[in-house]
Amino acid sequence: MHVNVILFDGFETLDAFGPIEVLARDNRHLLNCYSLAGGKIVSAQGTEIITRPLSEASRDGVMLLPGGRGTRALVNDDDFLRSLRNLAENTQYCLSVCTGSALLAKAGLLDGKKATSNKKVFDWVASNSDKVFWQRKARWVTDGKFYTASGVSAGIDMALSFLADVYGKDIAKTVAKDIEYIWNEKSDDDPFAV
Amino acid sequence: MHVNVILFDGFETLDAFGPIEVLARDNRHLLNCYSLAGGKIVSAQGTEIITRPLSEASRDGVMLLPGGRGTRALVNDDDFLRSLRNLAENTQYCLSVCTGSALLAKAGLLDGKKATSNKKVFDWVASNSDKVFWQRKARWVTDGKFYTASGVSAGIDMALSFLADVYGKDIAKTVAKDIEYIWNEKSDDDPFAV
Repeated sequence: MHVNVILFDGFETLDAFGPIEVLARDNRHLLNCYSLAGGKIVSAQGTEIITRPLSEASRDGVMLLPGGRGTRALVNDDDFLRSLRNLAENTQYCLSVCTGSALLAKAGLLDGKKATSNKKVFDWVASNSDKVFWQRKARWVTDGKFYTASGVSAGIDMALSFLADVYGKDIAKTVAKDIEYIWNEKSDDDPFAV
Repeated sequence: MHVNVILFDGFETLDAFGPIEVLARDNRHLLNCYSLAGGKIVSAQGTEIITRPLSEASRDGVMLLPGGRGTRALVNDDDFLRSLRNLAENTQYCLSVCTGSALLAKAGLLDGKKATSNKKVFDWVASNSDKVFWQRKARWVTDGKFYTASGVSAGIDMALSFLADVYGKDIAKTVAKDIEYIWNEKSDDDPFAV
């Protein structure tokens, strides 16, 4: 199964690389990083990642979308939102972390669905769509094929939950142990809710 | 303060990007990624990172060294170990995650010091030096300027502990909250020890 990671300048480093670590630990997954035009992408923490053009991403498998300060510009970028919508509508699963859900929401992908986001900037995220049932207390939220995680490290818990849902809980537990991570298994156990 | 991240092909993704997220959240830190020759480095999970040549790294600040399957070749790479030793001897702090401590040990940097590593491959790591006081039960170990973390996600706890030691516990707690991470503050609280 393809795992298509969608990056952009100013993405939050751990938003992407926590779930990447978890998802790529399952060798049924083939992982690639994309951005709208392809080429070098610089994270909010200054690391430089090589990406392929989004047009080359396969229209199946899992889409993973981080958040980060780069989302502030992208919620107003029609080209990006159109490409995102086109990919997300065709993939089997859509996973976002942190303010990544603001992009999904602005693209109309979460209309009528439950979703969550980073707790520090929740009001801004929610302002991007009044058609989403925003959940202020949730480590992550699953609604159909959409998994939206709360801030940054919540993406690791969400990715493990995704593995559990698709391949079984034993797989998720093995990955959590291998990366020596104490998995928060309960999506409603959110110690960071305001 | 410079944060010099030393990468190599086959490094474990979260080993590096967990601590990078934590350390770069403090704006007193200037973070850069290096590899022996510079250029593109591919992680064990297939992500492609742009690095600078190690020779250009400033000889001060913090060195961060991940582990990963790439360490299996590097423990026998004299050029790499010589460059690593030269940098590590001159930096103020040396942080490693997972099997990164095998490289520090093989380079002789941990002689007479306490250190830890990934619990699944501990025997292999320890086989690289009998001059290190290997700690089999530790989330991370601090000895002088050396911080060595256990497997993968333990690097996040270690990096927060480093912030607490250098800048104060309030800073570490703020970063942990901002990334919605439940910080394991106790270095001897290791649920993954065999």
